[in-house]
Amino acid sequence: MNSIGDLVIQKLIEEANIGIANAFAVRTNFPVGSAVLTYGGRYYHGCNIESVISGMGTCAERCAIDNSVANGEYCFKVILIKTNLEEPVKPCGMCLQYIAEFAQIPDQDIDILMVSSKGKIERSTIFTLLPGAFGPRDLGLDLTKFQPYKR
Amino acid sequence: MNSIGDLVIQKLIEEANIGIANAFAVRTNFPVGSAVLTYGGRYYHGCNIESVISGMGTCAERCAIDNSVANGEYCFKVILIKTNLEEPVKPCGMCLQYIAEFAQIPDQDIDILMVSSKGKIERSTIFTLLPGAFGPRDLGLDLTKFQPYKR
Amino acid sequence: MNSIGDLVIQKLIEEANIGIANAFAVRTNFPVGSAVLTYGGRYYHGCNIESVISGMGTCAERCAIDNSVANGEYCFKVILIKTNLEEPVKPCGMCLQYIAEFAQIPDQDIDILMVSSKGKIERSTIFTLLPGAFGPRDLGLDLTKFQPYKR
Amino acid sequence: MNSIGDLVIQKLIEEANIGIANAFAVRTNFPVGSAVLTYGGRYYHGCNIESVISGMGTCAERCAIDNSVANGEYCFKVILIKTNLEEPVKPCGMCLQYIAEFAQIPDQDIDILMVSSKGKIERSTIFTLLPGAFGPRDLGLDLTKFQPYKR
Repeated sequence: MNSIGDLVIQKLIEEANIGIANAFAVRTNFPVGSAVLTYGGRYYHGCNIESVISGMGTCAERCAIDNSVANGEYCFKVILIKTNLEEPVKPCGMCLQYIAEFAQIPDQDIDILMVSSKGKIERSTIFTLLPGAFGPRDLGLDLTKFQPYKR
Repeated sequence: MNSIGDLVIQKLIEEANIGIANAFAVRTNFPVGSAVLTYGGRYYHGCNIESVISGMGTCAERCAIDNSVANGEYCFKVILIKTNLEEPVKPCGMCLQYIAEFAQIPDQDIDILMVSSKGKIERSTIFTLLPGAFGPRDLGLDLTKFQPYKR
Repeated sequence: MNSIGDLVIQKLIEEANIGIANAFAVRTNFPVGSAVLTYGGRYYHGCNIESVISGMGTCAERCAIDNSVANGEYCFKVILIKTNLEEPVKPCGMCLQYIAEFAQIPDQDIDILMVSSKGKIERSTIFTLLPGAFGPRDLGLDLTKFQPYKR
Repeated sequence: MNSIGDLVIQKLIEEANIGIANAFAVRTNFPVGSAVLTYGGRYYHGCNIESVISGMGTCAERCAIDNSVANGEYCFKVILIKTNLEEPVKPCGMCLQYIAEFAQIPDQDIDILMVSSKGKIERSTIFTLLPGAFGPRDLGLDLTKFQPYKR
């Protein structure tokens, strides 16, 4: 784990709170917010979006990542997840897989911050939470055009 | 179908082109871009994002919608999809389902624009492409907090 | 639409009822059953299976198809969906897309039967419900090894 | 980890091989097979099934589980995954999440066996591979009707 400054954490929490406020948790009323900090120094947020169909909808972490990718940023230093629960919640296995695949682009670990409703923070990393995940490198896919400093 | 001004279409195509440029089509090399125009008058774009895992990844349309939802906009006037193919391609069934669920919030049809690589445009609507879709209203879910003019 | 004998329909309904009985509708308590009749003359059933994660879980139709595919049968004459609702429900857009992709293997239409709790039946076909769907043929994928009469 | 007899492992591998033979790996030509042993003592197999749409398709493990669930068996002693690679591959994060949710029904760990093309076996458990996963129990959902010995 790298050192993450308090201001960075504060900014990530603010972004995640926007996600919580906008969450389309129409089925569960369980809003989740997320935020990412990219290699380019930018922040993107996401929220959970629920469908009535099993197999559709997205988690907040994937929403935040997708928002970043759509803006040309594929490499992440930190991913934060925040809910309204009293204890921090870690990303689900599906999000861990998704995050791990993007970690393969620069081939660097990503810090994961999990934040409770009252600001209690737990820290881990994607290589800790899902060690040895299968990803695009294992298929020999060409990732060079998605490198961190493409722009 | 409503009348859509040329400037609106041009703006949607420009946004979709950003999606195409940023597409994470790491497996297929088949980039797709999308853009939405919300009831609030804002534009959001998206791209396809591929995973090595069957069942993960997202299409450009859902990416654009998620980006909009994460910013608190749930109601869409127009959704545009653009590829590098010579003929326009319509949204896949999964995206049609997703779009149809959001159409239930204001209970209004949504224009769908499909654009080829060279700018050939086909038009339809979500109620035409997927009539009678099952959505949150059919489950009696409360959609009032996601109304178009919430902010 | 082809003629479908009453005994075939009865058998499909019986299979779908097994799906309804076994549905893992842990979140919605809304069980759905499905059944398919393959080119090989066999029946497979499926049920909806819900996860707590947005984007996971499966619908009954896809479950039935997957069950068939796992047994080496990729081509379908009829797909039936049955719920406990008073009116027949058609497959969601995600399932329509999935069904349409398998329809491309023999390049033949598939009958879709929708059955209410009391046995009211509506009929359609996949080419009617999702015309012009994008599928493996559009990508030029080799489908020869999945032909109907492979065994 | 519990002791698993050689005959059980052999049976699971045979079932997974059926999955590999039937895999609908139309896009990647990377077939995967899986098999589960249920509390009821039955075996179900699955294969990976690929769609042309990002976000559709299923992995072999989820296919095998869905097959079991559709037959009324929700509790698993062992889940095996086998590929044609020279080294054993563990389930992806999405499958780990799915497996972990079913582990919450009896609230018991599940053995995971990973098998290479030549029969090299690695062993782990779901509680080891995805510790502390979020599942239906965390939402307070009623799982009593899905208990192991319902029939």
